[in-house]
Amino acid sequence: MRHVLTLLLLLCSIGARAAAPVVERIDPPFWWAGMKNPRLQLMLYGPRIADAKAQLRAPGVQLIGQRRGDSPNVLFVELQLAPGVKSGRFDIVLSDRAGTVTRHGYELRERRAGSGARSGFSARDVILNLVPDRFANGDPANDDVPGYPDPANRADLGAGRHGGDIAGIVQHLDYIAGLGYTMLWPTPLLENKQPKYSYHGYAITDGYKVDPRFGSNDDYRRLAQAARERGLGVIQDIVLNHIGSGHHWLADLPTKDWLTMDGRYVPTRHARTAVSDPYAAPSDRENFMRGWFIADMPDLNQRQPLLATWLIQNTIWWIEYAELAGVRADTWGYSDRDFLAKWTKAVLAEYPKLNIVGEEWSGNPVVVSYWQRGKKNPDGYVSQLPALMDFPLHYVLRRALASDESWNGGLNELYEGLINDKLYPEPHNMVLFEGNHDVPRLFSVFDEDVALTKMALAYVLTMRGIPQLYYGTEVLMTSPKQRDDGATRQDFPGGWAGDAVNARTGAGLSEAQREVQAFVRTLMNWRKTAGVIHTGKLMHYAPENGTYAFFRYDGSRKVMVVFNKNKTETALDTRRFAEVLTGQVSGSDVISGRRFDLASSVTLPPRSVLVLELR
Amino acid sequence: MRHVLTLLLLLCSIGARAAAPVVERIDPPFWWAGMKNPRLQLMLYGPRIADAKAQLRAPGVQLIGQRRGDSPNVLFVELQLAPGVKSGRFDIVLSDRAGTVTRHGYELRERRAGSGARSGFSARDVILNLVPDRFANGDPANDDVPGYPDPANRADLGAGRHGGDIAGIVQHLDYIAGLGYTMLWPTPLLENKQPKYSYHGYAITDGYKVDPRFGSNDDYRRLAQAARERGLGVIQDIVLNHIGSGHHWLADLPTKDWLTMDGRYVPTRHARTAVSDPYAAPSDRENFMRGWFIADMPDLNQRQPLLATWLIQNTIWWIEYAELAGVRADTWGYSDRDFLAKWTKAVLAEYPKLNIVGEEWSGNPVVVSYWQRGKKNPDGYVSQLPALMDFPLHYVLRRALASDESWNGGLNELYEGLINDKLYPEPHNMVLFEGNHDVPRLFSVFDEDVALTKMALAYVLTMRGIPQLYYGTEVLMTSPKQRDDGATRQDFPGGWAGDAVNARTGAGLSEAQREVQAFVRTLMNWRKTAGVIHTGKLMHYAPENGTYAFFRYDGSRKVMVVFNKNKTETALDTRRFAEVLTGQVSGSDVISGRRFDLASSVTLPPRSVLVLELR
Repeated sequence: MRHVLTLLLLLCSIGARAAAPVVERIDPPFWWAGMKNPRLQLMLYGPRIADAKAQLRAPGVQLIGQRRGDSPNVLFVELQLAPGVKSGRFDIVLSDRAGTVTRHGYELRERRAGSGARSGFSARDVILNLVPDRFANGDPANDDVPGYPDPANRADLGAGRHGGDIAGIVQHLDYIAGLGYTMLWPTPLLENKQPKYSYHGYAITDGYKVDPRFGSNDDYRRLAQAARERGLGVIQDIVLNHIGSGHHWLADLPTKDWLTMDGRYVPTRHARTAVSDPYAAPSDRENFMRGWFIADMPDLNQRQPLLATWLIQNTIWWIEYAELAGVRADTWGYSDRDFLAKWTKAVLAEYPKLNIVGEEWSGNPVVVSYWQRGKKNPDGYVSQLPALMDFPLHYVLRRALASDESWNGGLNELYEGLINDKLYPEPHNMVLFEGNHDVPRLFSVFDEDVALTKMALAYVLTMRGIPQLYYGTEVLMTSPKQRDDGATRQDFPGGWAGDAVNARTGAGLSEAQREVQAFVRTLMNWRKTAGVIHTGKLMHYAPENGTYAFFRYDGSRKVMVVFNKNKTETALDTRRFAEVLTGQVSGSDVISGRRFDLASSVTLPPRSVLVLELR
Repeated sequence: MRHVLTLLLLLCSIGARAAAPVVERIDPPFWWAGMKNPRLQLMLYGPRIADAKAQLRAPGVQLIGQRRGDSPNVLFVELQLAPGVKSGRFDIVLSDRAGTVTRHGYELRERRAGSGARSGFSARDVILNLVPDRFANGDPANDDVPGYPDPANRADLGAGRHGGDIAGIVQHLDYIAGLGYTMLWPTPLLENKQPKYSYHGYAITDGYKVDPRFGSNDDYRRLAQAARERGLGVIQDIVLNHIGSGHHWLADLPTKDWLTMDGRYVPTRHARTAVSDPYAAPSDRENFMRGWFIADMPDLNQRQPLLATWLIQNTIWWIEYAELAGVRADTWGYSDRDFLAKWTKAVLAEYPKLNIVGEEWSGNPVVVSYWQRGKKNPDGYVSQLPALMDFPLHYVLRRALASDESWNGGLNELYEGLINDKLYPEPHNMVLFEGNHDVPRLFSVFDEDVALTKMALAYVLTMRGIPQLYYGTEVLMTSPKQRDDGATRQDFPGGWAGDAVNARTGAGLSEAQREVQAFVRTLMNWRKTAGVIHTGKLMHYAPENGTYAFFRYDGSRKVMVVFNKNKTETALDTRRFAEVLTGQVSGSDVISGRRFDLASSVTLPPRSVLVLELR
């Protein structure tokens, strides 16, 4: 008897659903008129919606196809937008086999004028990388949100959510802009409905929703707007490779092949060289691109065309919605290689002057340069990516400054390391960072040596390429010397009510902290208008006696950056630099304002870096 | 009165010389009929010979020009040899302004049949690098030679001559060939008439003369002949960059610009990247190519065309004279870049199948690969050099085996390091060495760990490229872990009468020494006919659990090389290798002869390397 009832209820339920296709969600939630790509793929979610027939009638909008996946609850609808299509709303009309019809509104918004022509980040900028959960808690009310696991626990340094949020960033915008930053790269802000480690943001569970513990989508857009008003662009951290295990897709996969490895956890061996190593076993190459980081981060199968399109549109949606100034693409090489080219091409087709920086975490420039657009690869792979994180030079810089001088170590390693630029089609598009959320803190790597820290910062801020700093470096934040994610992502001082030290107000800062903060502020504000650093040529000289000098120059301007690692004042014979110093007899140090005579020799202060504007 | 006499004697002397041009020496001392290059530059030395007029009358030999340099005692005569010129002697006729005539015989010898078509060393070979002074003292009678400073002093480990010589090498040829070597690279044997450090041979004072403390030119030729009879080719270590301060040129420079830096000691900064670094100061590039190593090694100015031709002919002379199987070119990049291309082209024009390996001492493959022929360099430089010493992989190998396993260290570093092969136009022409005369001993770098030493040797002997070992590695010779030239060049045990230990006879060897000696002998003798190692393809798999496997394979043969760094037996799932193991169910270890079943898993002995011939 009970079975019959169940069966009846089930039939009614099916009948009801068949009778009225309900759309619970559409990805993307809205779109814009006037995009260059006339195609738009809508992913409709709803009970048994896959069987519905979609139609629409709207000027300039044509439904050119519909497809179902393997889930009965997902329907893909493909639209063609006419070149002159107007913004506005239209209805998607769904009918079931019985002819029952429902209507679902969809909106094409108006684009901001010049949206497609926006410029991305470049060597004119300085990027700040921050971890929102650990930066500043502007709104304690959203530390915990009903329905979200992983409650806030500031005492848990390694894995806990600390309550930082978008409001906290907004409160610090004046401070950030005042330091001289022009770009903001927060680690991912999208929903991480994960039972653990949700604070870091890389286990996204809804690609169209800011995590409510950080704020709302609107808050994010307002952050970008407020930032822009202060000369700061926002770079979104996009994760193409994987999602969080709490993602709504997991309960009901859109297609059987939505995830790699048949949806089972097979760990990647991290064999990143296998992508282009001519000797690599093809199975290792597959494992690298399709293996999972951890069981809690299912790997997306970007060879599934519906998913590939979803990912491309998702990125474009955020660029357009939040008016982004660029994209940082996480774990670059782990994604499918052909998809990456397609994704980059599609994004840059919409925004030709935007910039995208990929994270290929290798110290080997052979590995990293493979991905930069313009690279002629022996295997024929054509990448479209403009910028890469400059891990090779990052490591060289840290080693070179931390190690003693020798024929191939110390400053010599720094000097020799620049030859790797021969491998990059666009060295000016390498993002050189002193630190980020994944590597030990700069100050700690240098055993808390202020002089070396200043040298590293001056190098990053005057070398070719796009400089990027990590939050708190300016106030000498510390971490263990070996990788320890939680400890490298400590709370920014002053970001929480009641903090004894406040970097923003200066309260409680040590003398050394104030010194380095002022150093960064002076140098970065000077850099904003120092065009020769943005686009000038570079010439450097082999280190000698613990000193190293390079020049940035163009037709009219010259800057000399000179390092002295010795513990004593060191005289540097400037006649050696004759080929670039022509006609320059003195220079003003950007930091101290002190004038240095360069006619034949200059006395460098002990353990110093000078940034000399030449006259 | 005494002054008048002196003046008279001087006038008589000048008169006598002017009256009869005396030739004290001609470089090259003889030549061959039938070389491809029809031009021959003779450098005649003699008192005031520069003013003489040279003539000759010989069938097929035409004097097409003569030039003087800046020394009155040197005359350059240029000959054109007709295609069919016969071997034989002819006279060079010199006349002074007064019409006095002298005749000087010169010989064109007959070339060995097929001389120009000889094959050089290749991946079929294994090269032995040895330091003649420190290898074996076959003839104690020549330990000291009248007129030569720097007396033999075996007690002086760092700088002293120990008495090793060509006769000592000859006595060991059976031992060397028996180990399985097929090529011999002695460090330079030419005269080093230097007050100190003459043992190492790199401060050459006569480019056409074997140092008499090593033997005679004839001894050298007989060594090469005796070696050839045992299947061993000889590779000469050629020094193009510099000479010794005791060189006869120094007393009377042929031209003012024969040396770089106006003949004054200006040290090189060793800024090797400056050669092709797009940011390098041109003055640093010049300093690298033209600076001197030390005051005792004047740097040759290869931009001086007469010297350039001298150097090219000198190399060809030794190849032809000693019937060499190849050339190792010392301190490659320190010479003038354009000269290097010219020199290589000229040598290979005479011997198209010869091989030449350059020493570019850098761990950075970007630096090393710049020099390999076929490389498309951004600066347009076209190198002609076939082979390079594989310093990058050498360093990676040592680090990888010596360090603990981690995500980017240990075997993973070894695996990832092979991606650098993408930079080399001819990876098979990279000379991979476990050690040489300049780097700490392998066994010592591994803290005298026999297992790691065997792993490194097996790697070098089965990896792509041309393997090269250093003398005494097979009997675990030691050195400090930091560079110490003297200590890395200790006497080979048994090379001196009365040595307590004798590697050749086995007397006094420890069990570990015998074990590694047998390991090397077995592996290298097997390698001689293991064509798949010479020319087969390579496929490798990302390391897992402290193990690493690669395969060499071609149409018919397969070899699996597998390393286990664990201290325990380790099971390796062979199903992972399906794409290369097709149809192979077992393998025989080349060393032990033991058969291993590979159907689904293989148990690797603790801390081992297996070289499995697959069936």
